[in-house]
Parts: sequence; structure tokens; C-alpha cells
Amino acid sequence: MPDGGPFRVGLLGHGTVGAAFARLMKERADAIEAEVGRRAELSGVLTRSRGDFADILERSDLIVELMGGLDPTRDYVLRAMAAGRHVVTANKQLLSQHGEEVFDAARRGQVQLRFEGAVAGVVPAIRVMSETLAAAHIERVHGIVNGTTNYILSQMTATGATYAEALREAQGMGYAEADPTEDVTGKDAAAKMAILARLAFNAAVRLDEVSYEGIERITPDDIAYAKDLGLSLKLVGSAERIDGAVAVHVYPAFLYADHPLASVNGAFNAVTIESPAITEITLSGPGAGGVQTASAVLGDVVSAMIPPPSLPPPAVPQRIVTDTEFSFYLHLEVADRPGVLAQVAEILGMQGVSIKSVVQKGLGDEARLVMVMHPVLESSFRAAVDLIARLDFVREAPRVIRVIEETFD
Amino acid sequence: MPDGGPFRVGLLGHGTVGAAFARLMKERADAIEAEVGRRAELSGVLTRSRGDFADILERSDLIVELMGGLDPTRDYVLRAMAAGRHVVTANKQLLSQHGEEVFDAARRGQVQLRFEGAVAGVVPAIRVMSETLAAAHIERVHGIVNGTTNYILSQMTATGATYAEALREAQGMGYAEADPTEDVTGKDAAAKMAILARLAFNAAVRLDEVSYEGIERITPDDIAYAKDLGLSLKLVGSAERIDGAVAVHVYPAFLYADHPLASVNGAFNAVTIESPAITEITLSGPGAGGVQTASAVLGDVVSAMIPPPSLPPPAVPQRIVTDTEFSFYLHLEVADRPGVLAQVAEILGMQGVSIKSVVQKGLGDEARLVMVMHPVLESSFRAAVDLIARLDFVREAPRVIRVIEETFD
Repeated sequence: MPDGGPFRVGLLGHGTVGAAFARLMKERADAIEAEVGRRAELSGVLTRSRGDFADILERSDLIVELMGGLDPTRDYVLRAMAAGRHVVTANKQLLSQHGEEVFDAARRGQVQLRFEGAVAGVVPAIRVMSETLAAAHIERVHGIVNGTTNYILSQMTATGATYAEALREAQGMGYAEADPTEDVTGKDAAAKMAILARLAFNAAVRLDEVSYEGIERITPDDIAYAKDLGLSLKLVGSAERIDGAVAVHVYPAFLYADHPLASVNGAFNAVTIESPAITEITLSGPGAGGVQTASAVLGDVVSAMIPPPSLPPPAVPQRIVTDTEFSFYLHLEVADRPGVLAQVAEILGMQGVSIKSVVQKGLGDEARLVMVMHPVLESSFRAAVDLIARLDFVREAPRVIRVIEETFD
Repeated sequence: MPDGGPFRVGLLGHGTVGAAFARLMKERADAIEAEVGRRAELSGVLTRSRGDFADILERSDLIVELMGGLDPTRDYVLRAMAAGRHVVTANKQLLSQHGEEVFDAARRGQVQLRFEGAVAGVVPAIRVMSETLAAAHIERVHGIVNGTTNYILSQMTATGATYAEALREAQGMGYAEADPTEDVTGKDAAAKMAILARLAFNAAVRLDEVSYEGIERITPDDIAYAKDLGLSLKLVGSAERIDGAVAVHVYPAFLYADHPLASVNGAFNAVTIESPAITEITLSGPGAGGVQTASAVLGDVVSAMIPPPSLPPPAVPQRIVTDTEFSFYLHLEVADRPGVLAQVAEILGMQGVSIKSVVQKGLGDEARLVMVMHPVLESSFRAAVDLIARLDFVREAPRVIRVIEETFD
């Protein structure tokens, strides 16, 4: 493909992910051009009711397949690669049921086939396994690869809800489909684990070789026991080498609190990859929502445009600031007498520092004030602390630690 | 570089990481050749006391720099790139203090410069930022990028130890150096965060523009308060865009329990990358031990040997097994009468299932047996459960869930 001209992307499918992809590629066109030196442009969109595949293929350097399903998708993907077009897809059915056929077609067509969006939304499991760990011997992969079931189990754990109640709530939130069968039975996760096993072990695992169990029979009772024992209940996929063979399963499992997947809650995905040389890597992030999957797909498109750079582009001059806003915790050892809190609060107020919470602890020589502030410019807070440190009832140097809240919730 | 012949790797430095790298590359030589089509071979090793740089350079396609420090390392790296050799390095000082100079040299020499091992051990933060997220607008990066301090804080939290006690223990375990200054003051983390900021924002951040604080003054008291409030105390690096500028800090911080870094314990590293399109991705794994860093370095070497494949290699025929060993939890609703546990235990024993723990709960119609088994072949366990289900005192269908323990601890 010639350098300089636009990189023409033909899009198959315009559902939730397809529409999000088209929007995101437009939004990021300038940034991609700055990064890669070429502009990515939509050359056409095919849906089941509109557009002509041969025509779009003719006008594209790369085909993004977000139609899903096998028919006519499989045929389109094979034709695109036979015609020398790169393909990016998020189609787990296609890859788990006809993986070897499409991999062979890509090899014969000498084109790229990328599919990060097919497994764990924006969690870069595919890239990390095929690049970072290209030289590693992977022994086992554990994954939470279905956001719907993880959301349902998290809600059952958090609220004591039954499976049916949590499912209804997930449907209301848009985390579960009207017909949730593929997700709750573990079948969706099984397809994804077959793909991960293919990459981890170079083993062609057929979907019917993955045994899977879902979460439909999990009761609040099971979850209550888990809590008693300090365990988390998750729908886990496992792919592992066992005595020279490969085993792939999906099942609800209790995880010990120190397992890296135990703390993955809500509609998140995560994958833990175990290898003797590295012990383990865990990758986590939001599961397959439209925009997250679209973002993974766009990352694949950009990778297909250029061999991934080993270098960052030249730096852009930017202002570096050091005095920024934080939430602070302030620990004061104080004398136990009236008016102490009022004086401290007054100084904080004068410097524009607003108190979020206060705890008074201890008596007499043990008296302490522990406070957490709303976000404030560090210099203002430090000025207040300097003044507070000079108050005669402050017995020791104030202790300050920052507080970080989860931003996206 | 010609295809077919060996890919010649010159190694600078033969300390912990260098020796681990040489060993790992030899161990994995066959696998790399199968993956890449070329064999990676050590062409020479330079230490401060032995070997000739010009001679090794002449005989190498790629230089792996694991000497550390700036002198003579910087000169070697620049000369290697000027001579058209790719460079892989894990040298955070070099990149955080002379990053633009070495990036420019790589660009002029048209060679690759890879440095995954410089920041977070085997955690693939660099690759994910420069490839997966190439098309994303990154707003903020939070990192636990120093395993020593994370280990110390985890120990203080777990045992109530003082900073001095936990530091001594970390030194005993080999997680902290005899002179721990670089780590405990936050300076090591500051250099790493400067590198991450460079990649996240294309901003050249000088090390002296990163404000950092260490963990030396953290008291058991602070940690006790954190526990009271449900918070985790971590040494956190942050790099963020603020009103068109860039800010990079390292500081001890309380994290709310639902923050993805809150549950990262021990000598682990983790990086959370936030971007509007993806919300956030978290990557975690063991911090910079010798073999982990060596593994990241070898991943870089393999990437330099070929443009990363978008495809897995052809599948290798492998046996797929489905009947494998698991730990199981078994929940039985039983009649409340003598001999129940004995009968259940007898059936389990006959099938070779060994009980790890048993809890009896409830009375009368509410009586339950909850058991966790040692790992056992699934078919044996299922056979036992089928027999147990037929016992007359078992009031409802037995419930079975798998239990996963953390393997690497």
C-alpha cells in the first residue's frame, strides 16, 4: 500500500461496536495521523441491509469486521484476505470455530489479521501474549472474560441479591442482554478461552473441547459461605498445560483473597497469565462495552497501518506543573482541650482547604485529630499545615498523606 | 540484517539481570527460533572489567544494555545506534535523564530502541501504551513502580511492623538493597514515572521536574488509620494532564478499596492507565527481580528480531484433555442426625477424594455440611458426589463449586 495517501478502512457492521468504532476513528484521526504519518479514513460501511461488499473491498486497504456471527461474515473475511486486505475483527465465534481456516487464509494472503477486541474488550491480552510473552513459556491462563456474569456475581456479593434479581438489574443497566443465555451459561467465555488457549499454547482447541458451566445455579448461600471463608466467587476460564496436553474450562470458582482475579469486580474483564520465568502478569479493564471494544479495534487498525514503533515520536513542548490538586489526610497529635478543632478548621478555611471528614481519637497525651480534605492545591494545603504546625497545642510535626479515590465508577 | 543466519546479541553487563538474561536467552533459543525463524545467539559479553566494546559491537545485530548508570553506558548506547545496531535497555537513569538524546539517536540511526524492562519489570506498560493505546488519548497514569517500597508497606500493613523493621525484613528477603535510599525516597519511582509520562503524553519530563516523597516517615499509626477507614497505603506515582500541562509526582497515598492499585501487594508492580475512551486498564505483575526484568528484555529482543506477528504460528497438534484436577467446595443440605459426616467422608475416601476442611452449619431442617477438598480428578469427585446425592439424609441436590488458590506466593 502506498505511503502518504489515506489508509482506507472498510467497515462491516454498524451496531453498537461498529457505530462506536466509526465515531472513535473520526475523533482520533488527527492524533493517528500525527502518530503514524497517514490518515485513517472510512471507505465504506456495510450492514446486512445496505452497501455492497465487493465495492467496499475494492476501495479499502483494511477491513474491520464487526458484524459478528458466521454467515456471511466468514465468507467476507476470507475474501478480504484473499484479495490482500488486512482484517481486524472482534468476532469470537469466527475465531473459536474457524480459527485455523482464517489464520491460514491470512498467512496465504500475506496480510495481517488482528483480533484484540474479540476476547476481553480493551484488556490487551492478545497483544501481551503474542508480543511481550512471545519468548515466554506460558503454563496457564486464568480469565474473567465475561463482564455480564462478573457484574451479576459482584452484585450478588455486594447486596445479597438472588441470581434472578441481579440478572434483572444487569439487564436494566445494559450489562446483560434480553436473552442472556450465551453469557450466563459460560458459552461466551468458553469461546474466548479457546482463543486464548490457541495463542498461549499454539493448540487448536475446538469450542466443543471446552467444558463450561455457568452461574445460573449460584445461590446467595454460596456467596455467603464464600464471604465467611474470605473467598470471592467468580466465573473463571482456565486454559492450562497438563502433562503435555492442554485443558480449557469455564466454571464458577471461589478465589482466595490474594488471587489477582479476586478483586476484579463489576463489568470488568481480567486475564492472569502464568509462566515460570515471570510468575504471572495480570491485565484488567472494562469488559466489552461498545466503546471499549471499538477502542481495542482501533488500536489494531493503527498497528496494521505501521509496524509498531519501538520509539515514541519526538516530544512536543508542554508545560510541566508540580503544584497540583490532591485530597490530603492530615494527622495531628494535639493537646486534649477545647477549641483545638475550631482553630485548626479556621486555618484550613483561611487557606481555602475544605474538610471532608474528621475523626478525634484518644484522650489527654494521646489525643489526635485525623482529617481528610476535599481536593485542594498542594501549596494552599501546605501553607495551612505550616501554620497549624506552629499552634502551641500541636504536640508533634503534622503528618500528611495523599488520598486517591477511584475515578471511574 | 540477513535472514536465515543467527541474530547476534551483544550483552553489556553481567550482574543479576545480565546473567539471568544470558541464561534465559539460551533456554528459550529453540522456542524463539520456532517463533521467529531465526536463532538468537550471544555474540559477546562486556563487563566493566572484561571484553572490548568495539569488538562486540562489530559482531552484533543488537546490543542489550544491562550495565546501568550513565557512564560509560550512554556513550556505548549512542555508538551502537550510530553504527546501525538495535538497542534494548533496562536503564531508567539513561532514559529519564537523557531520553531525548537517545531517542533522537535511534531515529537518526533508523534502529529500534526498546526498553520495556526499564519501568515495571515484566509488566508490559511500555508496550501497551505505545501499541494498544497508540490511538487513545491518555489522561492519567497511576503506578506502583517500585517493588521494594510496596513490599515494605505491605509488610507494615500485614504485621503492624515499623518502617525500620519492615525494611530490615525486605533486606533479608533480597527485596531491598543494603543502601535502600534510591527506593525508599521515591527517587527510583520518580525516574520511572518520568519515562511513563514521556510515552503517555509525548512530553519530555526532566527528572528534576518530578516531585517525589518516600515512605521513610510512614508510621504504623498511619497504617492503622488506613485500615480503620478501609484504605490501602501505597507509594504511588502519578502522571497526568492538567489544564494543558503535565504533572508528575511520586508520594505515599491512601487508596480507596475499589481502586485497582489498592489490592496490589508485596514486591509487585502495577500501572493503571486512564483514557476517556477506555476508562482504564490495569497491568500488574512481579516487580523488577532479575529474571522478570530479563524476561521483559528478551521479549524486546524478540520484537526487534521481527515486526511483531499479527498472527499466531500454525497450530501444533496437541492432546486436549477435559478431565483434570481441581479443588472443590461441596455444599450438602443434610438431615441433622448422627453418622452423616462419617458416611459422606467414607464415600469421598473410596473415590480417593481427600477433605481439606469441613464446616457443619445449622440445625434440624437447616443442617448443612460445607466441605473443601484437596485437588482431585474431576471424574473421581463427580462419581463421589453422585453416590452422596443418593444418600437418604441428603435433602437437596449437592452444590459444587471449584476453588482456586494463588499459585505463586
